[in-house]
Amino acid sequence: MSRISELEKLKEKILKFRNERDWAQYHDPKNLAEAISIEASELLENFLWKTKEESRNLDKEKIQDIKDEIADVLIYLIVLSEELDIDLIKSAEEKLKKNGKKYPVDKFKGRSKKYDESKKNKL
Amino acid sequence: MSRISELEKLKEKILKFRNERDWAQYHDPKNLAEAISIEASELLENFLWKTKEESRNLDKEKIQDIKDEIADVLIYLIVLSEELDIDLIKSAEEKLKKNGKKYPVDKFKGRSKKYDESKKNKL
Amino acid sequence: MSRISELEKLKEKILKFRNERDWAQYHDPKNLAEAISIEASELLENFLWKTKEESRNLDKEKIQDIKDEIADVLIYLIVLSEELDIDLIKSAEEKLKKNGKKYPVDKFKGRSKKYDESKKNKL
Amino acid sequence: MSRISELEKLKEKILKFRNERDWAQYHDPKNLAEAISIEASELLENFLWKTKEESRNLDKEKIQDIKDEIADVLIYLIVLSEELDIDLIKSAEEKLKKNGKKYPVDKFKGRSKKYDESKKNKL
Repeated sequence: MSRISELEKLKEKILKFRNERDWAQYHDPKNLAEAISIEASELLENFLWKTKEESRNLDKEKIQDIKDEIADVLIYLIVLSEELDIDLIKSAEEKLKKNGKKYPVDKFKGRSKKYDESKKNKL
Repeated sequence: MSRISELEKLKEKILKFRNERDWAQYHDPKNLAEAISIEASELLENFLWKTKEESRNLDKEKIQDIKDEIADVLIYLIVLSEELDIDLIKSAEEKLKKNGKKYPVDKFKGRSKKYDESKKNKL
Repeated sequence: MSRISELEKLKEKILKFRNERDWAQYHDPKNLAEAISIEASELLENFLWKTKEESRNLDKEKIQDIKDEIADVLIYLIVLSEELDIDLIKSAEEKLKKNGKKYPVDKFKGRSKKYDESKKNKL
Repeated sequence: MSRISELEKLKEKILKFRNERDWAQYHDPKNLAEAISIEASELLENFLWKTKEESRNLDKEKIQDIKDEIADVLIYLIVLSEELDIDLIKSAEEKLKKNGKKYPVDKFKGRSKKYDESKKNKL
């Protein structure tokens, strides 16, 4: 007996939403990648001018705005993956393995200096 | 008998990876939002100078690069959600409902003009 | 006796560079806006995981990387302005005037709270 | 008799605007780099879902929106350069020279294939 995952169910809802509006025609990979980048930037805007500490202490309204932007990034990520026939979960698991080889525990554990020196992939 | 979802399993792997390296100390929400935006931009870079049509016809190597960037965006999205105690799937489902009210089918079906005129939320 | 500005001189160098390589064909406004966003994100990457304080105390090599990214943003900004027949300096002066009306001194002087509450335009 | 450039004059107006409001306190390099990236993304949003051709044929209102976003990017670029003591024009000229060595005319003239294959620096 097969079970459909919650991510799969979400994807089906998104595609139903899109098909009802006939919007697949706009969803070429280039424009979807633009949309992801724009939504990620709107997510970041919620933290602009804040300190690290302030970014840990957000009021309820701000958290709701952030939820909506996180949702937008995920939704477009799912659509792009669908268009390119990419398995989101599997890709993330494979990337984690790559990162594990790139950042071995014995060399990178608690090393903030190495952390700073290495480029941006911290996961 | 409870069942853990594939997204939940991925989150556990990510958090294990992070804890082994003691990297939670770097993961305040502001820096995580920066990381998501930077990774999304690297994803977009794969489509720069391309036409829409070219973005639908990518070679195998390019697809692999894109997979890695999509994975990075998802991984940081999961970490940020964890830090802010946000349920990713639920947030996306709620956002879809909001979008459904904002873009009713009878007004937006196949309307490229409306699509262009309205701002960027197309899903 | 007319004098050409330093920004004008820079623009001429950029256009000469481009024409020698026959690259104007790639420089439609959409792709140029993508390029600006991607370069701005690479600029930001130099500050990722850093604290505010660390971002004020950068070593010489980091400053050079930042210089290069700032240069890339400016160069594409100049090309996009050329393509759309926009006067960069005049646009910035007009925007400053708009911002002056939006953020009157008597209401916004030293008001970090207002600063935080208001959206992102702080200039 | 020294002459102040138009870019220098613009910088002085920006700093006057900032000082009247006591906003220098928010302008650490990390937050300024975030601001540049966010404004660049808002600039890009004006082109989202458009084709290359549509991006060359914008109405007057759209051009005004784009002018405002280009202005925001330039303004924050000037402030960041001021904070890091970077000469904007000189940095761009040096970067152009670097790019000239990286992309020699005889190898890159009219070569769309090379253009596509090489990463994103096309200027």
